[in-house]
Amino acid sequence: MNAEILATGDEIRSGALVDTNSAYIADKLETAGIVVRRHGCVGDDLNTLAAVLREIAARADIGVVTGGLGPTTDDVTAEAAASAAGMDLVEDEKALAMIEAFFKTRNRVMTPSNRKQARIPRGAKTLYNPVGTAPGFRLRIEDCTFYFLPGVPPEMRRMLAAEVLPDIEKTVGDGRTNCLVRNISTFGLTESVTGEKVAGVVRQFPEIKLGLRAKFPEIHVKLYLQGDDRDHVEKTLDAAAAWVNARIGKYVLSTEGKGMPHVVGNLLREKRATLAVAESCTGGRIANWITDVAGSSDYFLFSGVSYANAAKVDILGVSPQTLDACGAVSEKTAREMAVGVRRIAGATYGISTTGVAGPGGGTEEKPVGTVCVGLAMPEKAVGKRFFFPFGKRSMNKSMFAMAALEMLRRELLSL
Amino acid sequence: MNAEILATGDEIRSGALVDTNSAYIADKLETAGIVVRRHGCVGDDLNTLAAVLREIAARADIGVVTGGLGPTTDDVTAEAAASAAGMDLVEDEKALAMIEAFFKTRNRVMTPSNRKQARIPRGAKTLYNPVGTAPGFRLRIEDCTFYFLPGVPPEMRRMLAAEVLPDIEKTVGDGRTNCLVRNISTFGLTESVTGEKVAGVVRQFPEIKLGLRAKFPEIHVKLYLQGDDRDHVEKTLDAAAAWVNARIGKYVLSTEGKGMPHVVGNLLREKRATLAVAESCTGGRIANWITDVAGSSDYFLFSGVSYANAAKVDILGVSPQTLDACGAVSEKTAREMAVGVRRIAGATYGISTTGVAGPGGGTEEKPVGTVCVGLAMPEKAVGKRFFFPFGKRSMNKSMFAMAALEMLRRELLSL
Repeated sequence: MNAEILATGDEIRSGALVDTNSAYIADKLETAGIVVRRHGCVGDDLNTLAAVLREIAARADIGVVTGGLGPTTDDVTAEAAASAAGMDLVEDEKALAMIEAFFKTRNRVMTPSNRKQARIPRGAKTLYNPVGTAPGFRLRIEDCTFYFLPGVPPEMRRMLAAEVLPDIEKTVGDGRTNCLVRNISTFGLTESVTGEKVAGVVRQFPEIKLGLRAKFPEIHVKLYLQGDDRDHVEKTLDAAAAWVNARIGKYVLSTEGKGMPHVVGNLLREKRATLAVAESCTGGRIANWITDVAGSSDYFLFSGVSYANAAKVDILGVSPQTLDACGAVSEKTAREMAVGVRRIAGATYGISTTGVAGPGGGTEEKPVGTVCVGLAMPEKAVGKRFFFPFGKRSMNKSMFAMAALEMLRRELLSL
Repeated sequence: MNAEILATGDEIRSGALVDTNSAYIADKLETAGIVVRRHGCVGDDLNTLAAVLREIAARADIGVVTGGLGPTTDDVTAEAAASAAGMDLVEDEKALAMIEAFFKTRNRVMTPSNRKQARIPRGAKTLYNPVGTAPGFRLRIEDCTFYFLPGVPPEMRRMLAAEVLPDIEKTVGDGRTNCLVRNISTFGLTESVTGEKVAGVVRQFPEIKLGLRAKFPEIHVKLYLQGDDRDHVEKTLDAAAAWVNARIGKYVLSTEGKGMPHVVGNLLREKRATLAVAESCTGGRIANWITDVAGSSDYFLFSGVSYANAAKVDILGVSPQTLDACGAVSEKTAREMAVGVRRIAGATYGISTTGVAGPGGGTEEKPVGTVCVGLAMPEKAVGKRFFFPFGKRSMNKSMFAMAALEMLRRELLSL
């Protein structure tokens, strides 16, 4: 069983947009025991797209195609698929019912161009899209089964999980090998140091395939293994994950691949502790990350995003003397911010950030990339200074946010 | 002149790594007037790679290939290129000198596997890599000129700029066309309605190519045109952008493709006004967006992210009676949050969000997707209720944040 993945659309072809769908789909297919041979990308050109679909059909057992199912005139995927299969387009009752239901439940008016989305190649099977107007469809071209999905990542992901993977599972049946993966999320070592530390795992466990994925600012170590004996695959992966875990030590965030906000949230919940945050240079990124985790209202109380010094004094209770004497970017200000926000929110812990994210605002003494983070606990409070040489504002914000969360994580774990 | 781009490597093929190189290269080539027809990706398999190189050679004038030039045994690109060109591999003096110099200037020891990197196909021209050990090379296969570059993004970028683009420029010479784009960012209409409104632009301006990009929750309308006469291309695009602008009206955020936080920030700066934000359900997303824009400290003063009701009362000054009588998710609470945060931060404007982002917390009266947004101005304050049926927590957070920013944008523009 081998598969190919195709992304369509002029935005991706021309480089205006990075295609993240293909990697996501490849990862899911490989995990399901399907070997992905190639990915490709073409623009919104009917003839080129039809030609590429025929090429894939001649090579692969499975094709997964994203994009071009929208309501506008540059959405030509259904027409290209029909052309490649030598079929015409027909209005599909089931697809039309889905689109009508989508608009009805949302009290929105369906337009004629939305009706166009119900036209799929004759003989194709509609795939349900619970989150958008574009139904997908499954279509056989020669000996290859194609799945056509929308290009909008959340829609694609929902449909891949709910419609495509179970369908492939059914088709592949017992011919499928067990292709499992362990994901160990880490923070605090560079990618190359992490790579050197864990490289030995493939000598210890020669069947294992090792992958490192930089999910900035985290590094995820992925261990892949496929085989017919599921029990053996599971046990070998467990042993290899334990080996990696021991090598990376305190830099491991989660052996289930969870990110920092999730990990810190779980630790707070276990301790029945609550958190308040005072953010200057991170500008709300810490709060935004924490509240992306469902259920975070169990432990997250408040974040005060104080860009202005006046807000630091008036709302968070930082002393004007500290600001005068040490400046806004200082260990002492960070500590007072953490203490202040912990107090006003009535939280168990307070964390804070104050720094220079750039591009402007750097000085010789405090260049862009400088951050002070504070941690206030029931018994004491600390402030620390770090320097991260990333240069880019958005990367600095992320790194600063991670530094504060990491300080809290180590405190919660007594590391 | 048309080009294809190929990424190689099992990490990308299997989805362990997202390929950002191809989009980067496509963007640079298109900007240089070269049409990119396809991208592809294959793994580290010698025969597949050689076959794909021959396929590209048969279709394209230019091929840009990344990855597989490293020192390890799974780096097979040079061998595959030699095989596709019907040549053997030879140790290239110039390449060897580059690698030796790289190690010498860094006081590092060169290993035999690094020496392997000096072996390139006979007849190929070495491309200088100033930042890594892997030289690239240029090689003609049939009528196609291939550029082989390392897969490490900073190395690839440096070499693309220093070696590949100038070389292409020289080859293409006056045959190069001007390929320009206008990006009009919009918010408030669905993709299909936007598409219908602007579809006529290709009738009015038949040379123009139209693309719609959903950058949730914004919709970007892109107009592409290429031609030999730069002045004509510019003028036609300007006229087409004006046409689109008139059709979309108040839903246009920016004719330069700027996103909502940037647009609102510029409006605040123009008016010398400042902003404070009170966020419940958006959990810091508004502040995070606003502070992603460099220079936002000119107008952004404070955001209070108050998940807990106590924080709404104690810090933002919402009245407990309002919370009791109307609940946290109510127009009145939203208004009081906006008024409170405006007051404590001393800002010109205050905006607020309180709603149910999900997945939990919904009721029959206030289902997941309900949000109340508040806007406090010098003279008055308002609260409004919206319902967005997206289902997903992260999408709801974004939509809620946009609703609040849009309310402010319309106020600032008196729309």
